[in-house]
Amino acid sequence: MLIEFNVVPIGSGDSIGDSLAEVLKIVDSSGIPYKINPMGTVVEGEWDELFELIKKCHMTMLKNEERVTTHISIDDRKGKPNRLELKVKSIEKRIGRKLRK
Amino acid sequence: MLIEFNVVPIGSGDSIGDSLAEVLKIVDSSGIPYKINPMGTVVEGEWDELFELIKKCHMTMLKNEERVTTHISIDDRKGKPNRLELKVKSIEKRIGRKLRK
Amino acid sequence: MLIEFNVVPIGSGDSIGDSLAEVLKIVDSSGIPYKINPMGTVVEGEWDELFELIKKCHMTMLKNEERVTTHISIDDRKGKPNRLELKVKSIEKRIGRKLRK
Amino acid sequence: MLIEFNVVPIGSGDSIGDSLAEVLKIVDSSGIPYKINPMGTVVEGEWDELFELIKKCHMTMLKNEERVTTHISIDDRKGKPNRLELKVKSIEKRIGRKLRK
Repeated sequence: MLIEFNVVPIGSGDSIGDSLAEVLKIVDSSGIPYKINPMGTVVEGEWDELFELIKKCHMTMLKNEERVTTHISIDDRKGKPNRLELKVKSIEKRIGRKLRK
Repeated sequence: MLIEFNVVPIGSGDSIGDSLAEVLKIVDSSGIPYKINPMGTVVEGEWDELFELIKKCHMTMLKNEERVTTHISIDDRKGKPNRLELKVKSIEKRIGRKLRK
Repeated sequence: MLIEFNVVPIGSGDSIGDSLAEVLKIVDSSGIPYKINPMGTVVEGEWDELFELIKKCHMTMLKNEERVTTHISIDDRKGKPNRLELKVKSIEKRIGRKLRK
Repeated sequence: MLIEFNVVPIGSGDSIGDSLAEVLKIVDSSGIPYKINPMGTVVEGEWDELFELIKKCHMTMLKNEERVTTHISIDDRKGKPNRLELKVKSIEKRIGRKLRK
């Protein structure tokens, strides 16, 4: 399954880059396939490993914050591996040109 | 923490009420405090128990479907219990009148 | 169509009730059918009127804040009016018992 | 402001690539800066132009579908242009290494 998630602290200033950097270090060193975009991180794998990672990110953010919001979107399609790479390519193939990524 | 979630099957017709009913039976009999609204279900508790419930809902939906999307929003605020009841009441108190629920 | 939305300021403290109260006054006095829940507000109507309302809420929040996040979920189903009331009732009918709201 | 959105038809089969391709052609030819990822499209600009685009995408999808869900996340931060490029770079700078995109 594909999951996009983002973790946002509420109430500690409008610049949250340092907190986000700590979270993304966890993602990057997890070994789980991911792609980061300006609004979140997309990961691919099985439920338990992905939610172990997301919980770790959420709890790490919560250590130094009073309030944290986390948004998670799951797209789970049977028998379709490597959608992290193939989903966008499949759209590009249909359109017949490259899209901006 | 508060979590709102919804589980939606893609591709089995535009009427998804029977599948949703099965998911909501799981929520209702879980013993976890919840409130249902037209766009999702809000539950309150700790990470592990809530995600055990959401996983069960997602996997139940996936049994009879080829593709399922699940959206999850977490609002986690330290030292604030019973927000399922109190969050809306706190807003009403500030406004000085009842809101529609 | 049904739309659930919430507007959250980032960076002005973890208690955001006063800002939310101002936003919900706008919703309550708009004349648009709505239901509030602990995680957001569900409104029903046509695209233009609903997004005029959501823009007003977002921009009002932004007046006193440096950074605002707004999440919006649309469920648009042809030929189905009054889903604000009927969607949950339809599930309850299928299950054969009342759910908590 | 940055907005991530995705438009998903419910009920017309689990392969929705053709419909998505049509929507992404609209985005690509709009002239609005965007980045596509496996779970959505991130666009940058002002409220009115972005919601004109999103409405067009939603309504195009609805032409051939009975039911469409659209999810929209807004991150609006005053005085910060070109966050489509800079937001991820700012995180990479803090971490001191490139992230996967």
